[in-house]
Amino acid sequence: MNANTSFFGDLLTSIADRGRALLDRNSRVSGATKAATLVERCEDLLSGKGEASGVALATDILDRYGRMKTGERIAFFEGLAEQFGPDRDRIEKAIDSFRRTGSDAAVAELHAASEPRRQELFRRFNLAPRATLALVRMRENLMDAMAHRRDLASVDRDFGHLFSSWFNRGFLVLRRIDWSTPASVLEKIIRYEAVHEIRDWADLRARVDSPDRRCYAFFHPALVDEPLIFVEVALMKEPPAAIAPILDQKREHLEPEKATTAVFYSISNCQRGLGGVSFGNFLIKQVVEEISREIPSLTTFVTLSPVPGFGAWLEAERKQDDSRALSPADKEALKALDDPDWAQNEAVRADITPALGAAAACYFLVAKTNRGKPVDPVARFHLGNGARLERINPMGDLSPKGIAQAAGLMVNYRYVLSDIEKNHEAFAGKGEVVASPAVRKLLRADTAPRALVPLP
Amino acid sequence: MNANTSFFGDLLTSIADRGRALLDRNSRVSGATKAATLVERCEDLLSGKGEASGVALATDILDRYGRMKTGERIAFFEGLAEQFGPDRDRIEKAIDSFRRTGSDAAVAELHAASEPRRQELFRRFNLAPRATLALVRMRENLMDAMAHRRDLASVDRDFGHLFSSWFNRGFLVLRRIDWSTPASVLEKIIRYEAVHEIRDWADLRARVDSPDRRCYAFFHPALVDEPLIFVEVALMKEPPAAIAPILDQKREHLEPEKATTAVFYSISNCQRGLGGVSFGNFLIKQVVEEISREIPSLTTFVTLSPVPGFGAWLEAERKQDDSRALSPADKEALKALDDPDWAQNEAVRADITPALGAAAACYFLVAKTNRGKPVDPVARFHLGNGARLERINPMGDLSPKGIAQAAGLMVNYRYVLSDIEKNHEAFAGKGEVVASPAVRKLLRADTAPRALVPLP
Amino acid sequence: MNANTSFFGDLLTSIADRGRALLDRNSRVSGATKAATLVERCEDLLSGKGEASGVALATDILDRYGRMKTGERIAFFEGLAEQFGPDRDRIEKAIDSFRRTGSDAAVAELHAASEPRRQELFRRFNLAPRATLALVRMRENLMDAMAHRRDLASVDRDFGHLFSSWFNRGFLVLRRIDWSTPASVLEKIIRYEAVHEIRDWADLRARVDSPDRRCYAFFHPALVDEPLIFVEVALMKEPPAAIAPILDQKREHLEPEKATTAVFYSISNCQRGLGGVSFGNFLIKQVVEEISREIPSLTTFVTLSPVPGFGAWLEAERKQDDSRALSPADKEALKALDDPDWAQNEAVRADITPALGAAAACYFLVAKTNRGKPVDPVARFHLGNGARLERINPMGDLSPKGIAQAAGLMVNYRYVLSDIEKNHEAFAGKGEVVASPAVRKLLRADTAPRALVPLP
Amino acid sequence: MNANTSFFGDLLTSIADRGRALLDRNSRVSGATKAATLVERCEDLLSGKGEASGVALATDILDRYGRMKTGERIAFFEGLAEQFGPDRDRIEKAIDSFRRTGSDAAVAELHAASEPRRQELFRRFNLAPRATLALVRMRENLMDAMAHRRDLASVDRDFGHLFSSWFNRGFLVLRRIDWSTPASVLEKIIRYEAVHEIRDWADLRARVDSPDRRCYAFFHPALVDEPLIFVEVALMKEPPAAIAPILDQKREHLEPEKATTAVFYSISNCQRGLGGVSFGNFLIKQVVEEISREIPSLTTFVTLSPVPGFGAWLEAERKQDDSRALSPADKEALKALDDPDWAQNEAVRADITPALGAAAACYFLVAKTNRGKPVDPVARFHLGNGARLERINPMGDLSPKGIAQAAGLMVNYRYVLSDIEKNHEAFAGKGEVVASPAVRKLLRADTAPRALVPLP
Repeated sequence: MNANTSFFGDLLTSIADRGRALLDRNSRVSGATKAATLVERCEDLLSGKGEASGVALATDILDRYGRMKTGERIAFFEGLAEQFGPDRDRIEKAIDSFRRTGSDAAVAELHAASEPRRQELFRRFNLAPRATLALVRMRENLMDAMAHRRDLASVDRDFGHLFSSWFNRGFLVLRRIDWSTPASVLEKIIRYEAVHEIRDWADLRARVDSPDRRCYAFFHPALVDEPLIFVEVALMKEPPAAIAPILDQKREHLEPEKATTAVFYSISNCQRGLGGVSFGNFLIKQVVEEISREIPSLTTFVTLSPVPGFGAWLEAERKQDDSRALSPADKEALKALDDPDWAQNEAVRADITPALGAAAACYFLVAKTNRGKPVDPVARFHLGNGARLERINPMGDLSPKGIAQAAGLMVNYRYVLSDIEKNHEAFAGKGEVVASPAVRKLLRADTAPRALVPLP
Repeated sequence: MNANTSFFGDLLTSIADRGRALLDRNSRVSGATKAATLVERCEDLLSGKGEASGVALATDILDRYGRMKTGERIAFFEGLAEQFGPDRDRIEKAIDSFRRTGSDAAVAELHAASEPRRQELFRRFNLAPRATLALVRMRENLMDAMAHRRDLASVDRDFGHLFSSWFNRGFLVLRRIDWSTPASVLEKIIRYEAVHEIRDWADLRARVDSPDRRCYAFFHPALVDEPLIFVEVALMKEPPAAIAPILDQKREHLEPEKATTAVFYSISNCQRGLGGVSFGNFLIKQVVEEISREIPSLTTFVTLSPVPGFGAWLEAERKQDDSRALSPADKEALKALDDPDWAQNEAVRADITPALGAAAACYFLVAKTNRGKPVDPVARFHLGNGARLERINPMGDLSPKGIAQAAGLMVNYRYVLSDIEKNHEAFAGKGEVVASPAVRKLLRADTAPRALVPLP
Repeated sequence: MNANTSFFGDLLTSIADRGRALLDRNSRVSGATKAATLVERCEDLLSGKGEASGVALATDILDRYGRMKTGERIAFFEGLAEQFGPDRDRIEKAIDSFRRTGSDAAVAELHAASEPRRQELFRRFNLAPRATLALVRMRENLMDAMAHRRDLASVDRDFGHLFSSWFNRGFLVLRRIDWSTPASVLEKIIRYEAVHEIRDWADLRARVDSPDRRCYAFFHPALVDEPLIFVEVALMKEPPAAIAPILDQKREHLEPEKATTAVFYSISNCQRGLGGVSFGNFLIKQVVEEISREIPSLTTFVTLSPVPGFGAWLEAERKQDDSRALSPADKEALKALDDPDWAQNEAVRADITPALGAAAACYFLVAKTNRGKPVDPVARFHLGNGARLERINPMGDLSPKGIAQAAGLMVNYRYVLSDIEKNHEAFAGKGEVVASPAVRKLLRADTAPRALVPLP
Repeated sequence: MNANTSFFGDLLTSIADRGRALLDRNSRVSGATKAATLVERCEDLLSGKGEASGVALATDILDRYGRMKTGERIAFFEGLAEQFGPDRDRIEKAIDSFRRTGSDAAVAELHAASEPRRQELFRRFNLAPRATLALVRMRENLMDAMAHRRDLASVDRDFGHLFSSWFNRGFLVLRRIDWSTPASVLEKIIRYEAVHEIRDWADLRARVDSPDRRCYAFFHPALVDEPLIFVEVALMKEPPAAIAPILDQKREHLEPEKATTAVFYSISNCQRGLGGVSFGNFLIKQVVEEISREIPSLTTFVTLSPVPGFGAWLEAERKQDDSRALSPADKEALKALDDPDWAQNEAVRADITPALGAAAACYFLVAKTNRGKPVDPVARFHLGNGARLERINPMGDLSPKGIAQAAGLMVNYRYVLSDIEKNHEAFAGKGEVVASPAVRKLLRADTAPRALVPLP
């Protein structure tokens, strides 16, 4: 049998293997890997030397960078910011020519002249084996550095620009994650889960290897065992009002063909270095297509989502004398929240549910940012995708985290494929929050009008 | 067993399958697919609608485009050229801001403002399933149209810019092509071979399935069964002087471990639509690495290359009274070329060999374009890659095509890894043609000095 | 990325690679590879030496065998027949013990004692890399030798016994064959097609790469690029009456979802060395399942089959004075067949069709072998599988081969899943040929009763 | 792109998928799955019905069996034992014919007649999807039942016979197990590890995902995610004397290219149902080949093996007044073992080491079973494979298990490829235990001669 038998299957592996020899050759380089040397090497890579032996140069640069300490890396970023910007003389000349001729060619030259040299530099970095992942990690380092160094923003912008092109949705691949997925990938699912922590391998298995659970992730061919984003799905008979039964490892399983509702109960971005490149919108819509095909009985697609801004917002409203969101009676009822153990007490829970519901309706439908958008980031994401706010679940997440961030509140967003465009336009164009009648009804008559004044 | 078993292997296939449902939904669109409608749809795709349902929109656009006739396509290209350029008002404002502040942010805005809207449009096209290949094919249509419509050059420039980023060498994958390669790929090797035609499947098999032959191609994960460029290699005991014995299907095979010389006897680009994105340099160097590892006995890496400009150049020199390349005696000898059957006659072949050699040396070492480069395009490619001109083979290709384009001449270029950077710099920096002593010796004493004057 | 990424995909390739080192080590063995030495080696392999270094020994044996000439191989087969039969002393003892005790253990010992030592020898041969294919080929050599040497039958029986176990249907894998199948497999499809010759790659492509064509094959994991049996299927709107339109490369294609009928128009066994192990029955039934799932519109599954025995049988009946199959009028009409160009003449074709139909009905329904089975081997195969004889097509195959073997006649067998068991029992138990009313009606009233007497 | 792209890679998956439809069809069969019905079905499967619809019948049988309780299964095994043995009348006839003619054909008939009908029945079971694994599990049930029911031995013998043929080493595939192996396989490595328990996923990862660790397993194509046997290997600079440092998750890693010694520190069979089919010998030898190729610096291949029989044997010798293995001084020293915490005390450890060493030498070199073999089963395995006993490590495993089974003793066996055949023959032929001089020297002068009398 010939070695070619898994012809296309191997396409990906060879990216990684390529040039290992080269790496070895360079691995004994002296420890004095200073930022200056590295910047010099970058100049070489942009010059003719890069054309003749770009793979080796790029490999060497990333290798040296990999062995640098934090301080050296920041110095290197400074070098990138200062020495690899656009050529300002060339810009001036391009502007003159543009003003003189106004030609398409002059615009093109203006565009080319104003492109930072970093862009081409980063493209050449990518000649090295496994460079794409290394560049994503490099940007993570840069983001850390930027906490104190806003002057590095131009470098970050170039990374963002490049990654938007490279990680174009057309190059992403959706993969189901299950129990026959390589452990190296599963381990990352555990590590990257950002919404409802996966405690251990048994917890993971309950989420990916049960008949009524699904997990899907986007991958990029150049980052093979690194998921970019993933979503966890529960197959149910109706939209759920709370997360605990979903995460319960001992729950009874539902046969998939009896499910009518697919619940997206956790979506996590995996690569901080890809910040600004958005995948979630595409992921949800493709998973809807995928599981609809697999399980034709599914008719309803909802999320069970956290409300990360609600806790702080409610706290603030409760303190405000003239809260536009809470009536005095609400305030009185919500005093129960000051007891850290309130969630243990069934009577208390029943008591405060109406006030929480009303407050939440106000939080979603009335409260706005300066830009006129809902204050909740998760709401902005799903509404922007064309979902509608379907239901408010006051006792949705009574875990310490759920209580801390949202007084236990969770919500369902619902995706109806045929309404997505309309909903999106209403939200994006007019700032309208599309919500179900049930949610709208929660809004107290007295809060609605006052709420027309945008919150700060 | 679970469907996930060939986890990574399947990554690629699902790109293609995604959204087939979507395509179907749109496939019954009316026949009135006019360019105007399409341009309108493109506006939708760039607007909020594209954010909500980009995959469906992009799919529809490419589908409509696919069903258009040539004239409609040209009209569509005109639309792209006229309506999707950069926003000139925004450019003006960006220039003002740049001149006022000179800040990095102003430069960034200048860069963004001068980017044609086509760039983002093309990126969104890529949301559709199999869009990348469709875009490459779209550019091929555009190139055809440009023969008469130079005003479409700006659209072409945007394709070129985008493809340079997407087809970055870091995303390419080298694959060996052999007899266990899928027929769908092999068929394309037959079709795309541009140097020495592959006559049929038996001819192909002789080139990819013999112990002393190798074939390698670059692939891009989004274009899975479309090779981008491929090279054919013969394993030999010494650099060859002629192509016919290499292509002979009945030749004796050499055991690979006895080979000392790898001969690159054919390199073909496959995708006209990727014109301007260069792969050849990387391909040769990676194949050198690859086969060195597989066959440690290899010490010499050469090409056997055509000389496409030589025939016409020689013809011109022969007509020139005061040729700087040909002595009167040479001219006299070369009159034999006027007999269309000269190559059949062994005595003639022996007779004209010295004159051809001298002329060829002049052609490579002395003749220059206006820019001071060798007139032969293949020479510019290999010398630019850092190879040296190793040997001139006057009777290298006596096929009708070889005689027509180069009076039967072929040459060997040699790649010595340790000299590549030096050779490249000599060529790129000083325009020096690095050649072996044997080639230099062919140069007649009298032509050399005169030749310092660049040819037109 | 880790080398394990195509974990299961590689399972198969490593069988082939294993022990290449070993092979190399033994490849320079002296030319004196005599049968005697080989037999000696076989004794070693069955002894303790085989336990310690069985892989190396087995590899060496198959390697030596591979380099033997025909005569030497026959001598080796003689050695196998004479020296590796069962141990007759042990049989005698086992019989005594069985007669004495009648115990299960005694039966087991009788079974073990009567097993030829070849069985274990062949099992140990299989330790060598790629041994399974080598053993299949070895049996092909043996079959050739047996043409004149019936004394080798015992060796052949042991191969058959072993292969029945190894090629158990549970280990076979169905694969679709199409245009992305490796050329190494497609080439074998061309080579092994035994019913309607595949002329070249274009002909192959028309059969495997058209929307209304399918091709499936069984593979065994240890013989990876060797199909065992394959079937070609045409998707149509009704059962076909002739083969030519199916093989026509220029025919119009049918969209698969409009097809109602799957036509099995060619089934070919690929490995002569696996003679006696039957795959066809399983293949047809699994393909029926497979394409039913893919194309739900399919309701009818028929073959278009040759009638290999009809030509000779008809010839004989025509010569017989008192033919039970042909009436005098039929005989008169069929005289037209003596003109070698009869099929060119439309009037003749119309003339003889009734007589051919009646004769064919008699051939299938009345004529029997000594064992009471239909005389046509293809009929025995399909009827034994539980199909029914659906239609007789007198002008089904007017190619020279079709005319020579069956006077142009072809037939359709039909597979109705729910009737398969019933039909099989009727055929296997009572020798009944299940046929459609249309076929039965062709039978002349006068032939039927007479035909109750079995033909010789 | 075509679905065929991972042509061979998918070969395996389809075994599993095949006929899922069939299974479904039968899954609602009534609960009255009695052994009698099942036996009846088995008769059907062996009859003509099995020929027509064997896949469905076999699927139904295995499905019914799968839902049976223990008692019903034992009843079914009784049915197999009683009703599916060989046909004794046929045996009698075959014996007569053999005694009369003595022909090869008569022997063949004797062999066929004495084959239990179970063999063919099991082969037909294998028609069902995933049957091979189901049959392995069925034999596990049978083995459990046999604890009390020796009359089922004949059924077990037939399983053993069949599995020996099906799991022929030529069909096994070696796979490296590492961190990119599917979790479904890794989970089984954790579960099946029988020598040094794998505590959790972190422990597993330390063993399969460290640069100086390797793990390899044999797989069979029909049991894809079920390893048959696996071995864990440590790459070291010298043969180890104790297991704890190898299992220590916090140890320092060795760069593989600096290793000289490959240590096989754990070998576990995974499938109890494959008892009697031996894989270990082949696995060790192939792994030696495999890692030699990967890491050319390796020169030494040893095990670090438990000594499971030593604890009980030593206990017995200590109690014997006239022990041939222990001198009075040894006995006195070994009294320290009666303190359950002896291993905590360094002085004690030093004290008893000589006596333990001498006793161990006697245990390996002198003590014999009735059949003249070493009493230690692990010793019989490695010596039978051609290894030699290299070193005795008295404080090799001070875990509770190690102390309980072998008073802390471990040993190294060494595999020298060139000596394997010689060692095997010495052991298998003459019962000689090949041991290093160091081991031999431990043997007290006085024990050796006495020891010639075999132990009971």
